[in-house]
Amino acid sequence: MDQQNLTHPDGQPAPAVRSATPDRPPSVGMVGAGQLARMTAAAAIGLGVRFRVLAAAADDSAAQVVADAPVGDYRSAADLLAFAADCDVVTFDHEHVPQPALRALEAAGHPVWPSSAALRLTQDKLAMRRRLAELGVRVPQVVAVSSQSDVEDIADRTDWPVVLKAVSGGYDGRGVWVCRSYAEVADVMAHGVPLLAEEFVPFERELAVLIARSPSGHGAAYPVVQTIQVDGICHEVLAPAPGLPDRAAEDAIGLGLRLARDLDVIGLLAVELFETRGGLLVNELAMRPHNSGHWTIEGARTSQFEQHLRAVLNLPLGSPGLTAPCVALANVLGADDPDLRGKLNHVLAADPALKIQLYGKPVRPGRKVGHVTALGDDMASVRDRATRAARYLATGSEEP
Amino acid sequence: MDQQNLTHPDGQPAPAVRSATPDRPPSVGMVGAGQLARMTAAAAIGLGVRFRVLAAAADDSAAQVVADAPVGDYRSAADLLAFAADCDVVTFDHEHVPQPALRALEAAGHPVWPSSAALRLTQDKLAMRRRLAELGVRVPQVVAVSSQSDVEDIADRTDWPVVLKAVSGGYDGRGVWVCRSYAEVADVMAHGVPLLAEEFVPFERELAVLIARSPSGHGAAYPVVQTIQVDGICHEVLAPAPGLPDRAAEDAIGLGLRLARDLDVIGLLAVELFETRGGLLVNELAMRPHNSGHWTIEGARTSQFEQHLRAVLNLPLGSPGLTAPCVALANVLGADDPDLRGKLNHVLAADPALKIQLYGKPVRPGRKVGHVTALGDDMASVRDRATRAARYLATGSEEP
Repeated sequence: MDQQNLTHPDGQPAPAVRSATPDRPPSVGMVGAGQLARMTAAAAIGLGVRFRVLAAAADDSAAQVVADAPVGDYRSAADLLAFAADCDVVTFDHEHVPQPALRALEAAGHPVWPSSAALRLTQDKLAMRRRLAELGVRVPQVVAVSSQSDVEDIADRTDWPVVLKAVSGGYDGRGVWVCRSYAEVADVMAHGVPLLAEEFVPFERELAVLIARSPSGHGAAYPVVQTIQVDGICHEVLAPAPGLPDRAAEDAIGLGLRLARDLDVIGLLAVELFETRGGLLVNELAMRPHNSGHWTIEGARTSQFEQHLRAVLNLPLGSPGLTAPCVALANVLGADDPDLRGKLNHVLAADPALKIQLYGKPVRPGRKVGHVTALGDDMASVRDRATRAARYLATGSEEP
Repeated sequence: MDQQNLTHPDGQPAPAVRSATPDRPPSVGMVGAGQLARMTAAAAIGLGVRFRVLAAAADDSAAQVVADAPVGDYRSAADLLAFAADCDVVTFDHEHVPQPALRALEAAGHPVWPSSAALRLTQDKLAMRRRLAELGVRVPQVVAVSSQSDVEDIADRTDWPVVLKAVSGGYDGRGVWVCRSYAEVADVMAHGVPLLAEEFVPFERELAVLIARSPSGHGAAYPVVQTIQVDGICHEVLAPAPGLPDRAAEDAIGLGLRLARDLDVIGLLAVELFETRGGLLVNELAMRPHNSGHWTIEGARTSQFEQHLRAVLNLPLGSPGLTAPCVALANVLGADDPDLRGKLNHVLAADPALKIQLYGKPVRPGRKVGHVTALGDDMASVRDRATRAARYLATGSEEP
């Protein structure tokens, strides 16, 4: 299981990244200081690398726990260049750094992973859909929206509802609108942001495949997972995806490894998929640690956070194999009660084998403030343990 | 397996430690910033608690990775009180804080775990041996050394060699001398440090049992491990101890849980044991994360570092169950080559499932600078994987 999902390049791999300062470990700088950077910090401690974050504010989730966390503006090339000056590699916990700023880093000679060219596909959903279609990958039918007639084009071809998406900047369901009439389309267009329109895919369920790739060309693929999303927000992740035929899993992993190579992604690539009666469609790409991979902290031999660090440092990748037959993750989504810690005792006492990650973020309704992972031999049981605990932490009740 | 090694108090447990500042997570302050504090920092990230260390120097192992790492003198009550002012709980990564300083913290009302009374037994080996003997626990025969005639007393009763130990302050083999003659005894006595003399125990092997205990009286016991020590320095840890009869394992765990309770230890208690033909003898106690428990990071459902934080915060303890049938850990002991990172590629490429922790410490001969953990179904195989990798990291060769 482990070995078959690790691919190796032809020829001799390039050496790992070393520090520009002799006798110091290399320094990885992550732009952004959310929970992804926070969990990466824990992995960096074990690998013995220096880890820095460029935070938007001193109390950001990762800035609370990282020794070297300067505050700066990720949109400013000057701030990024100042940050990169003390980094041996620069990487990201989000995809919002503007292209000119990314290219300024690259022009100054800083190793930036993923590259500006790769990241562009996560910043422009139209460009991403078109590039994937060029590569022969199945994606939803899509058009750029400059007027209502463009939406008519998709509606005529695929029927209602039609999905409108902001071309860039959306996440966790923000920037996505499922429209059932021209009146709803007009309301969305009134926001004035660049939009695309695409067919509503009647999927059976959502899957995700997570790949890591290093500059030497090493690749690693985690087992395919099922994600359960509500209003575009990930609620649960099940690893491996229950009942997925081996052939379909191999297809998804092969697709992920091929995309990582063809799009020249260095670091992590998360591919969100629709499973339909006609096969798999690619919905979204992310090139960073991803919510669909948080289960790997305890559920895989190498966590996605350690794997991302290994990849951008050009270290050999670690085993993506499972540590238990079934792993379930449930996100803790903020509810009305801001007091998460008051509910921690109950959850930890009820299930001593449960693993909890809290992100150090103030509770706000619907906000991801932590997650719960359960491991075991039976998916129904681990899923029940994880979802009950996550609900209790959020609401003080185990019932939905 | 999990549940039987978790013990619960009678009655209602006390509530978990909360922050003195509303809406902030509680803050755990650890005195000392070595690798134990460094690895505790990684666990604190997941638990969402604030973690601070009192470092001796700004480049200490843990100070490199902890956001809040003031520099101060652990021997100074003033420095400790200043540090404790922003901590909800104070704990330790070593046992060298003097008793008056500990008692000053307690007198000022700070929760200090373990307490000064418990820690005293790790600071005074004579007091520890006497207390254990009072509790009916088997320990080596021992005398305080004020003159050579005290050593004669032990030598007459138990024959040579005789073990001399510094009464306080020794670790990793420092402060321990195995003497085979009065001439050797005289050399050791010339150091001028307070000494004890004890019988040389002809043990079959060394074992260790690791316990956690919370203020509410919850207890947790990890599986008994075998440690392989050379010149008093831990080289390897095997979990669970190979071939240990169930009855002996239960006895060791029962002894550990009883000692934690009778000595009123809060946090971790590591009990180092001699396995002899006549049964188990207690050799040493430590009340902090311990080298014999580093394997728990990947090998147990709850790492010793997370468990220590849960205990001192009075959170329910986590499962101490194994994540794989066999776990082997090998320490990376510095050799002549100071360049650890140059050898990392080989080791990671050769065994993608190996887990490595590097402590961020400059390499010096014999110094613990990291460790390697392997997990699997066969102890001989995981032991071979871990020791080869650790040797290669240290020396550039896999051969002993």
